[in-house]
Amino acid sequence: MEKCNVALYGCGTVGRGVAEILLGHQAGITRSIGRGIRLACVVDKRVDELRKLPLLAGIPICSDLEAPINDPEIDIVIELIGGMETAGNITEKALKAGKNVVTANKALLANRADALFKLARQRGRSIGFEASVAGGVPIIATLRDSFVAETISSIFGIVNGTCNYILSRMTDEGVSYPEALAEAREKGYAEADPTLDVEGHDSAHKLAILARLAFGINVTDNDIYCEGISHINPADIAYAGSLGYKLKLLAIGRIKDDGVELRVHPTLLHRNHPLAVVDNSINAVCIHGQAVGEVTLTGLGAGAEPTAGAVVADVCRMALGVYQEDFRLLPVFGGTETIHCIPQEQIETKYYFRLSCMDRAGVLARVAGVLGEHNISIDSCIQQGRAHQDSGYVPVVFMTHRVKEENLLNALREINSLECIDGAESVMLRVAEI
Amino acid sequence: MEKCNVALYGCGTVGRGVAEILLGHQAGITRSIGRGIRLACVVDKRVDELRKLPLLAGIPICSDLEAPINDPEIDIVIELIGGMETAGNITEKALKAGKNVVTANKALLANRADALFKLARQRGRSIGFEASVAGGVPIIATLRDSFVAETISSIFGIVNGTCNYILSRMTDEGVSYPEALAEAREKGYAEADPTLDVEGHDSAHKLAILARLAFGINVTDNDIYCEGISHINPADIAYAGSLGYKLKLLAIGRIKDDGVELRVHPTLLHRNHPLAVVDNSINAVCIHGQAVGEVTLTGLGAGAEPTAGAVVADVCRMALGVYQEDFRLLPVFGGTETIHCIPQEQIETKYYFRLSCMDRAGVLARVAGVLGEHNISIDSCIQQGRAHQDSGYVPVVFMTHRVKEENLLNALREINSLECIDGAESVMLRVAEI
Repeated sequence: MEKCNVALYGCGTVGRGVAEILLGHQAGITRSIGRGIRLACVVDKRVDELRKLPLLAGIPICSDLEAPINDPEIDIVIELIGGMETAGNITEKALKAGKNVVTANKALLANRADALFKLARQRGRSIGFEASVAGGVPIIATLRDSFVAETISSIFGIVNGTCNYILSRMTDEGVSYPEALAEAREKGYAEADPTLDVEGHDSAHKLAILARLAFGINVTDNDIYCEGISHINPADIAYAGSLGYKLKLLAIGRIKDDGVELRVHPTLLHRNHPLAVVDNSINAVCIHGQAVGEVTLTGLGAGAEPTAGAVVADVCRMALGVYQEDFRLLPVFGGTETIHCIPQEQIETKYYFRLSCMDRAGVLARVAGVLGEHNISIDSCIQQGRAHQDSGYVPVVFMTHRVKEENLLNALREINSLECIDGAESVMLRVAEI
Repeated sequence: MEKCNVALYGCGTVGRGVAEILLGHQAGITRSIGRGIRLACVVDKRVDELRKLPLLAGIPICSDLEAPINDPEIDIVIELIGGMETAGNITEKALKAGKNVVTANKALLANRADALFKLARQRGRSIGFEASVAGGVPIIATLRDSFVAETISSIFGIVNGTCNYILSRMTDEGVSYPEALAEAREKGYAEADPTLDVEGHDSAHKLAILARLAFGINVTDNDIYCEGISHINPADIAYAGSLGYKLKLLAIGRIKDDGVELRVHPTLLHRNHPLAVVDNSINAVCIHGQAVGEVTLTGLGAGAEPTAGAVVADVCRMALGVYQEDFRLLPVFGGTETIHCIPQEQIETKYYFRLSCMDRAGVLARVAGVLGEHNISIDSCIQQGRAHQDSGYVPVVFMTHRVKEENLLNALREINSLECIDGAESVMLRVAEI
């Protein structure tokens, strides 16, 4: 069979990882799949810098975005530029020019999957996106292929390695959020501008992609409630620990009778939950299927090598000609339904909250009174020691039974306005019931 | 598209699970995959019993093994009869008659995969076997598709739910092996004759299938060192626990410079290892790929529903026509290499052993002397308290550094023959270095 020609757009860390696999394991790949894959060119604006890399010796490098797309020899375009505008244009043009596209771009897919997938289908081409969620963890293939006949009721997971690393450090060492973030930067786990990661947007992008596949629904990240970890105080991680819980940033999608819940937020998980032991930069996704029960996939969620491995797996299956049919059959086509996204205030779960209470008689009674009025019942409560002389306030921690978020928020608003409570210090976290 | 006609051979618990999904979710399956799947007939010797099941009302049931195979209307044969002889014949005849076959029969595949896969390939047909390993956990699809371009260096896991349940009970409750086995029987986790499970043969069957896919090598379960759990004493689980380890029955496949290690045995796993928290009847498999790193898949390994879900997933992908190409491309064809299986005495790992030592001065020195002569160095040692008056012996527990199994066995043989040691009471367990 003729070699399959690949153009690599974007040669940062993941791009170089892809080049390393394609160039370093040519013989192995050819042996495995029975067809050679040729890295035909690299497209990147850092032409001079890349020309110095021994890795890319002999590979044409250019900054012209159009030429490879218009080259009839190119079969597959790998889009690793990131961002929305340019990456979206390249993907569109490549599909229109008859190329298959492999991308790791979750932001692009979270926002424009519907249009791009439709375009690909019209042109008889495909988009490979295994690398867009959880790096080397084959969650896309599993949802697409192995769960083809399953009714999936929920999908949730830890899909951002940066946040998981930061929370792990805060949990294990008791360090503050800024300290843990600085460490994550040092280790290369966090970008110079970490906003996309730490505010939960990256997780929301991934949840949009997962929910589309798992539930066959048409969603973008705008449909997802999103709360990050930058406001987390290590004190709450410690209190949660003493109650038997660990704090994780979870992306949660659940089918309910009246629609779908889609949310990203810091979540207390019981320490016996399989995801509670997923620490550092590891990712993990749980899928609940009606027949197969709960299946969990765990592995490296980021990093050049795992992500590059996922890109190359898609490239190989495209080169083999087997991916195109898998893509054509994605449940996001045809059956794509618009579904009611349940507003965050309407969800029901358990809650953790910490109040800063004046250290005097009757305060707890007043708090309990407000909670009772809002039908909130308490599962457990921690109050340790007396107030420091200088503040006069003591932290009191509550864990509720199941309650509607609206009720909880209304009650907290009322409690925070009590003159015996320092409302500015109140903290609320959701507890997983999954 | 025309409906896809399926003949179901064997209607025990898994078979009924398959019938339930195919009959109960017809509309959903048709919507998902765009093609109907019809349960055309059930083949089972318990015809009268099955005719009474409301589930199978209207479905032809017969005990004639030949008729459905010779029926040109049948597209797919699901083989859930189990055992080797009849199941092998049915599979062979079905393939020769131009049917695709889906099977959950690990014993059959562990022994005859090479011949059956070749036959299927010659006839342009395929064998689906996702259900043969770890039930609903999509480990076969992951190895086949997502790891197509990976160099896999090791695969290991907990692939027998019965053993994992028994060991979990012995660990959590300190009960003896016979008590835990009785519980497993009561809960339906163990067969009347549990030999295949508890002696490790079932795990070895599954390892043969996994190693074939992961490493592209031609192995049967005869190539696998196999040791079960029926000799395990809860005392050793407790000692291991105090050293920070948990006992699991692991199936391990590892590529080494001089061949491949294939072994099933009770293994001490450090409590921080991801598999250490996989308890009860849950299965989990870890794969180490050169690019993607370690990926772990966890889920229900047995039970009617998960296994049936995996069967139906294969059936659906065959009905869609996408599975045939995946099967054709399995690395077990063409590249199939015979590889040197490293004899168990030649493996190197850490070891745990417990000796029953006479409670008198100089005994430890003699043991240490023998260990030293065999170049075995000790990582840790536990001796608690003095001997009971009636026995005069005390248990002493050792954990070694890395050593060749041959050396360890020679040393133990020598130690067991010392007159100050009750050799009949000695216990040796391997410690995972994975």
